[in-house]
Amino acid sequence: MTTSWIPVPAESDFPVENLPFGIVRGVGDAAPRVALRIGNHVVDLAALVERRLVDVPPELVAAPTLNALLADEGGHAGRVRGQVAELLTSTPDARVEPAIHPVESVACLLPIHPGDFVDHYSSLDHATNLGRLLRPGSEPLLPNWRRLPVGYHGRSGSVIVSGTDVVRPEGLLPCDGSEPALAPSAALDIELEVGFVVGAPGTRIAPDDAADHIFGAVLLNDWSARDIQAYEYQPLGPNLGKSFATTVSPWVVTLDALRPYLVPPPPQDPEPDPYLRAERPWALDLQLEIWLNGERVSATNFRTMYWTFAQQLAHMTVNGAVARPGDLIGSGTVSGPARAERGSLIELTWQGADPLTLADGSHRAFLLDGDTVALHGWCGGAPPRPRIGFGAAVGTIVPAIPRARPIHDR
Amino acid sequence: MTTSWIPVPAESDFPVENLPFGIVRGVGDAAPRVALRIGNHVVDLAALVERRLVDVPPELVAAPTLNALLADEGGHAGRVRGQVAELLTSTPDARVEPAIHPVESVACLLPIHPGDFVDHYSSLDHATNLGRLLRPGSEPLLPNWRRLPVGYHGRSGSVIVSGTDVVRPEGLLPCDGSEPALAPSAALDIELEVGFVVGAPGTRIAPDDAADHIFGAVLLNDWSARDIQAYEYQPLGPNLGKSFATTVSPWVVTLDALRPYLVPPPPQDPEPDPYLRAERPWALDLQLEIWLNGERVSATNFRTMYWTFAQQLAHMTVNGAVARPGDLIGSGTVSGPARAERGSLIELTWQGADPLTLADGSHRAFLLDGDTVALHGWCGGAPPRPRIGFGAAVGTIVPAIPRARPIHDR
Repeated sequence: MTTSWIPVPAESDFPVENLPFGIVRGVGDAAPRVALRIGNHVVDLAALVERRLVDVPPELVAAPTLNALLADEGGHAGRVRGQVAELLTSTPDARVEPAIHPVESVACLLPIHPGDFVDHYSSLDHATNLGRLLRPGSEPLLPNWRRLPVGYHGRSGSVIVSGTDVVRPEGLLPCDGSEPALAPSAALDIELEVGFVVGAPGTRIAPDDAADHIFGAVLLNDWSARDIQAYEYQPLGPNLGKSFATTVSPWVVTLDALRPYLVPPPPQDPEPDPYLRAERPWALDLQLEIWLNGERVSATNFRTMYWTFAQQLAHMTVNGAVARPGDLIGSGTVSGPARAERGSLIELTWQGADPLTLADGSHRAFLLDGDTVALHGWCGGAPPRPRIGFGAAVGTIVPAIPRARPIHDR
Repeated sequence: MTTSWIPVPAESDFPVENLPFGIVRGVGDAAPRVALRIGNHVVDLAALVERRLVDVPPELVAAPTLNALLADEGGHAGRVRGQVAELLTSTPDARVEPAIHPVESVACLLPIHPGDFVDHYSSLDHATNLGRLLRPGSEPLLPNWRRLPVGYHGRSGSVIVSGTDVVRPEGLLPCDGSEPALAPSAALDIELEVGFVVGAPGTRIAPDDAADHIFGAVLLNDWSARDIQAYEYQPLGPNLGKSFATTVSPWVVTLDALRPYLVPPPPQDPEPDPYLRAERPWALDLQLEIWLNGERVSATNFRTMYWTFAQQLAHMTVNGAVARPGDLIGSGTVSGPARAERGSLIELTWQGADPLTLADGSHRAFLLDGDTVALHGWCGGAPPRPRIGFGAAVGTIVPAIPRARPIHDR
């Protein structure tokens, strides 16, 4: 545990060992730019470049997204993070101070411009729970599930940053005994996930080379309208039930910072095909929590995932597809075996059969308008291991928007 | 039919009434730039801007993709197309000539940087054929099919321009009686589609407002590895079976040029929900052909599609998702009712049960290494209606790439 001369609160997600990358607006000129986070402050990298205190091409940090830095082949991201750590832990430096701003004084923007967003279904407990709920009476896991990390492409244009409201989506819903009709979702849910951000591009990537291509990670809430999804999803998979919003936390925690917390994954049976095998440990000892209206409703650990992000990256590129800088890889919902470890409301309430009771006495099967959901996550935290946290991925549900103009009937 | 002073061959897809937009390299400096196509020539718009012959901000045409032009709210694309048509049909102008180059002298690049790529399943005959093939003995169309345009997100990073080779993908394939293993696809197929390119962004778009948001169209071959797809696709839909390559033709034919060929779509039963209803005709009288190794193997018409692109755009944005400039909307495979009108090999050969016999006496169930597939499409062509064509979307299959490095066994 290292001490910086910028004060860092004891329980902060952002000690000097973390220094995640993000995009902020409100410092210097009005343009968005790259920053690092330390405690409750942000470090304006463009200002440090102007003062020649760090060594990175200005166009990589005076940029509206991290994509140029992700694509950089010069190793500048790792070096600048090391240089800033050095500046913050040596003697206080008056030349550095003008680059430091309270986080409350800036707006944190979406850190990446995602190219493709691939999401997965890689928790054994989540897939088993969903199989039991959606295909009762049959084997919960389909034959391919233990052979490959099942995934699909989500909508990259709907990825939003923490703090952005989520409008309740409308969709075509079957009504009991009558025609399906457009209506606001009545089964709006959350999915607790971790999102991995691609740095250097590549294809046909071996799992043990994942660190050459994964820059870092964010928390990710894959909001899901279960009723829209249930009606639409055969045979081509989820579409409008998920394409309305995906919230990510604003700070990309680097794989370098997470590396001390990589651990061996659970055993896989059957052993996967050689292209999915790894010798290195690619699970992550990352504690995750879901908070609903200020109350913790789930807590689990990411190390329980059956398929690792390294295997997901290997699988999604084995056919020749290229992973590009800024691509976002969703882990899939993270659920542990116990009820209190489930990562979605459909699992926590068993599709509404067993609603949550909140502290105010109200009940939830799915989300109501006005509900606020926050995901939290951190590695370590018990001395001497520093807490490497993600901050929060927060969203509040606002009512469905009535259509902008009347639809004529024929 | 209008005559330009640039010679246009009688059967050309590109008379002066067409003037589609593309991206070329090889004129002026080495940087890619926007061009219009006329006959066997391209018109360098940046050169016309330098000579003050057209009125468009230089940064919209000295650009490596059409995206800036697609996002432009100033109506410059439509105006510059009109100005070039005027320049090419008035008296020959020595100031224009330096901007005209033979198409063989340039490289035609991918015209758009696709944001999201949404593909569909909107031909009644295609969906019925696939249902019969893949779910024999049950109702070929699932209950949602006639209620909404079923679709999913494809991989935008795998969209490639005509002429790019297609590497046969590897994927996890079940072997008779043994473990599934990584192997090259043995069921590599084509899908004959039309791709619509989004211009002005929007959400919750009414079908009859489609022309405000659709800039134009390309031909699209959604290459599909049927065996990879069959093993992976439950329950989240196609992924690696399609994410390796999607070929588009290089010229974006504008909706303005296509407008005379919009026709009423086939009747829909049941009548769709109000958000999917249109009063204007949004089907397109577009003749489509598949050529395999220089031989025509299928011919159909796009006007037979059950769901129109206007309805697809309305559906994919009804949940609040934003269609962005450069987004690509695949029509889904276009198949007519007759065998010779089917838009994929799995349909043409009935999953290999009835192979094609080519002129050289060889047979095809699916594609072999070395096979070249070309999609062609055009509206009109019988005087007095000009032929508004798309050029070709071509790809040649090259053998699977052995893995770059050996995979260790444990």
